Amino acid sequence: MNANTVLQPILVDGRWVQAEAPTGRFHAFEPSTREALADREFPVSGWRDLEAMLDAGKHAAAGMAHLPPETIARFLETYADAIEARADALVEAAHRETGLPAEPRLRNVELPRTTHQLRQAASAARDGSWSRPTIDTAANIRSVHGPLGGPVLVLGPNNFPFAFNGIAGGDFAAAIAAGNPVIAKAHPAHPHTSALLAGAALDAANAAGLPPGAVQMFFRTDGELGLRLVTDPRLGAAAFTGGRPAGMKLKAAADAVGKPIYLEMSSVNPVFVLPGALRERGDAIAAELHGSCAMGAGQFCTKPGVTVLRAGDGVDRFIAELQRLTAAATPGVLLSPQAPRDIATTVARLQAAGAELLAGGAIAEDAQGFAFQPTLLRVSGERFLADPEALQSEAFGHVNLVVVADSCSQLLQVAEAMEGNLTGTIHSDTGGSDDAAYDTLAPILRARVGRLLNDKMPTGVAVSAAMNHGGPFPATGHPAFTAVGIPASLVRFSALHCYDNVRPHRLPSSLQDRNPTGSLLRLIDGEWTTRDV
Amino acid sequence: MNANTVLQPILVDGRWVQAEAPTGRFHAFEPSTREALADREFPVSGWRDLEAMLDAGKHAAAGMAHLPPETIARFLETYADAIEARADALVEAAHRETGLPAEPRLRNVELPRTTHQLRQAASAARDGSWSRPTIDTAANIRSVHGPLGGPVLVLGPNNFPFAFNGIAGGDFAAAIAAGNPVIAKAHPAHPHTSALLAGAALDAANAAGLPPGAVQMFFRTDGELGLRLVTDPRLGAAAFTGGRPAGMKLKAAADAVGKPIYLEMSSVNPVFVLPGALRERGDAIAAELHGSCAMGAGQFCTKPGVTVLRAGDGVDRFIAELQRLTAAATPGVLLSPQAPRDIATTVARLQAAGAELLAGGAIAEDAQGFAFQPTLLRVSGERFLADPEALQSEAFGHVNLVVVADSCSQLLQVAEAMEGNLTGTIHSDTGGSDDAAYDTLAPILRARVGRLLNDKMPTGVAVSAAMNHGGPFPATGHPAFTAVGIPASLVRFSALHCYDNVRPHRLPSSLQDRNPTGSLLRLIDGEWTTRDV
Repeated sequence: MNANTVLQPILVDGRWVQAEAPTGRFHAFEPSTREALADREFPVSGWRDLEAMLDAGKHAAAGMAHLPPETIARFLETYADAIEARADALVEAAHRETGLPAEPRLRNVELPRTTHQLRQAASAARDGSWSRPTIDTAANIRSVHGPLGGPVLVLGPNNFPFAFNGIAGGDFAAAIAAGNPVIAKAHPAHPHTSALLAGAALDAANAAGLPPGAVQMFFRTDGELGLRLVTDPRLGAAAFTGGRPAGMKLKAAADAVGKPIYLEMSSVNPVFVLPGALRERGDAIAAELHGSCAMGAGQFCTKPGVTVLRAGDGVDRFIAELQRLTAAATPGVLLSPQAPRDIATTVARLQAAGAELLAGGAIAEDAQGFAFQPTLLRVSGERFLADPEALQSEAFGHVNLVVVADSCSQLLQVAEAMEGNLTGTIHSDTGGSDDAAYDTLAPILRARVGRLLNDKMPTGVAVSAAMNHGGPFPATGHPAFTAVGIPASLVRFSALHCYDNVRPHRLPSSLQDRNPTGSLLRLIDGEWTTRDV
Repeated sequence: MNANTVLQPILVDGRWVQAEAPTGRFHAFEPSTREALADREFPVSGWRDLEAMLDAGKHAAAGMAHLPPETIARFLETYADAIEARADALVEAAHRETGLPAEPRLRNVELPRTTHQLRQAASAARDGSWSRPTIDTAANIRSVHGPLGGPVLVLGPNNFPFAFNGIAGGDFAAAIAAGNPVIAKAHPAHPHTSALLAGAALDAANAAGLPPGAVQMFFRTDGELGLRLVTDPRLGAAAFTGGRPAGMKLKAAADAVGKPIYLEMSSVNPVFVLPGALRERGDAIAAELHGSCAMGAGQFCTKPGVTVLRAGDGVDRFIAELQRLTAAATPGVLLSPQAPRDIATTVARLQAAGAELLAGGAIAEDAQGFAFQPTLLRVSGERFLADPEALQSEAFGHVNLVVVADSCSQLLQVAEAMEGNLTGTIHSDTGGSDDAAYDTLAPILRARVGRLLNDKMPTGVAVSAAMNHGGPFPATGHPAFTAVGIPASLVRFSALHCYDNVRPHRLPSSLQDRNPTGSLLRLIDGEWTTRDV
């Protein structure tokens, strides 16, 4: 590092400015070469930066409350256009900072997903039905979900530099579409990518006429200041996607002062393969499971971390096939220098709890980039039940633990020992021999997962209104909300606003007698309708 | 107390049973005579009782998951009928245990409100639209809000023995309608009333065919066990209505393990009277405000505790009128022996922070029942801003603090210093002279309250789909939820259940291709519709 290098600016109140009194500096790495990207250095922001963003965000919240939904929708669409116009630079930067393949992953999958989300959010903002306007004409009481009155802090993860980026991803789109400013924390593993996105966001915000503090971004801060930030009275809410230790600290801080916080923390996404399915298509399921674990070098929130089988015909063959595939696989590039070390720690923890290593298990020192050997472990159902907490440790990489239960009832006990997860999957045969087991297993799993799958792998999260990217604690902080799936994801960033006897001209347009768009769905005197009052 | 008296039974797993190893015993009081109701003694339950209820509730949750909505709806309606059939006994018991007037309050207002809520919940359960079924046919992903998989603990307050009772009130109705069993904690101030309700609930549950553990009730437990209860893995969620100290302890315990908890804790319900309104109808507003404070002896969550004025014409007259009315008022009967002492503590706290006593201020020792003198205090805006926390202490009785700001800008500062409240009210004149002040004040208040009122008093909560009985922390734990207002109140007791590629016959009926009722509103491929897929 060179203390004389000019630090990259942060985006505060509509302007790119130098951090005031930063407490440190950092740079990213190029994961596929392990080289430091030392040509760009970024500030670790102190409280003065955060305070300036809070003030500007609070001010912007007041300004956004008066904007017509059309302005917000136009911003989101203009931003999506701007991202597409800058696709080359974005893909190049993201590839460099994350090691994720430029094509198809970044250019053809993740970037279109990101712009699609922004445009879906624009439609939801324009339509307004997500806010559930409800009118009781006899009592003259009217209510609607409105913005929070302060900015939303979005802390994005490292594994989706576009689609979950704090300044461009699903939480950003939902928070803005619900009428709130955003303060984004860029992930320090891809700061330049985030800065490019923020530049596009700022241009679009200016073009659409959003207030200056509507979109702001910093790169990093100290842990204690992060905790202070989520408790600040000026903040509306926070959204975090990342590891459980950091998430739990943020949750404790926010909960203590009653600040809404949405967390997507960790998940081992159990996959149950019932005996009939194993007999019917064991090899195909093994190949599919392996592919699902390998995708993105295993750095997906919905990667299967635990596979559960019942001892019997086909189990040895299935595991041997998985072992063969895993041992033969090339280690993928991981996102940061820390990633291989974190995976090693988790694998050691699994082994200490009794898991037997079948393939991989070590940092891939020979690889050119940051990497860990694709890893497979095995443990008995009995061992699993003796320490289910340790054996559900999430490894954020290509690591899968196969649990072999000695009976159907032990398999159900394993399911009951599962923590809250984003997903849970059951593979059953098509002939019906697994149906009784399915019917017993599914309700147990249903209560423990956000998304229940049949006969496919959970990895990947479709951008669909019907998606739930959520689940019971500790996968997230609350089981009724989803981080993906517009319009439902917008509700997180709202407060229920009731108006009792408020004079007609003072009501928000969604609650006035006249339906403002002609197509806004409202609950009027018990009937869902698009008519005027 | 007589240690040989047989304790009243608790309702566990479909049967009235003696508490196992209770840790104590208690009895209620007759507030209007201050006499002990020692003929009935109730147990303080130990962990074995709570554990038995958790097990039975968990089992009942599995059973309820398979019930058609019609069964749940029929239970709620049968229960409403049973309450009406037992109205005489219920009104007598509640009047005796609470001192609230038998008529009109208990018989003609609160009892009908309670049965109305139960019937509204039945309609919501039967209709199902509250659960927002969402179907993406191209991706074959479907989602719906489903039950939590465990019982909901409802801790009811002391001030509504029917309408907010843990075994009959709004939270009970919402939790059951959303498909969950309920474990109710009766409020120890009206245990016999609660036992009568629970008897009606049990009969109705049996008649409708709910599983035995669907409705359970205990009377009291030790604080530590209550905290353990809200963290138990078998529990689905908890709902609490009561004071802030107890609520905050429950919240901290539940938050630490990610268990959903809904709290309605405290609120001073600020009423702003703008200068024009004071000139135009000051006397009428004073009378209305006084009536609002006196209602139910001031024991309403939505009682105005703070009135904010701007110094100027009419202020002295308004305060003098309030003072006259307050001094002349007869103290109402309070709910418990502790109530007058708690109010005295709060009034002392307000005085210590600089409030001047204008009327009342002491326990009404002469009254036949538990009572505190109707009380009025006054403080300057400057003083208020010096210690806004102490001066927003909630007194659960007829106590009102008038804050006189010396300018419009100080009045806005007072508004900005307000904590989260259930309600906030602005009285403005009809001629328009207050409009500019309203436009500045309303957004500040909007961000701090659940229900914003114009030109009326906040006391009372209409049972309406458009109601929000909620608000930002610390009024409640989350600003997007309401405790009153069906169907929205049901969502609190749900988890978002997504089904990805799940075989058609395994889907809940609300997500199958065919619309199960023909009128269930579903979001299918972006369109809200009642059609089949």
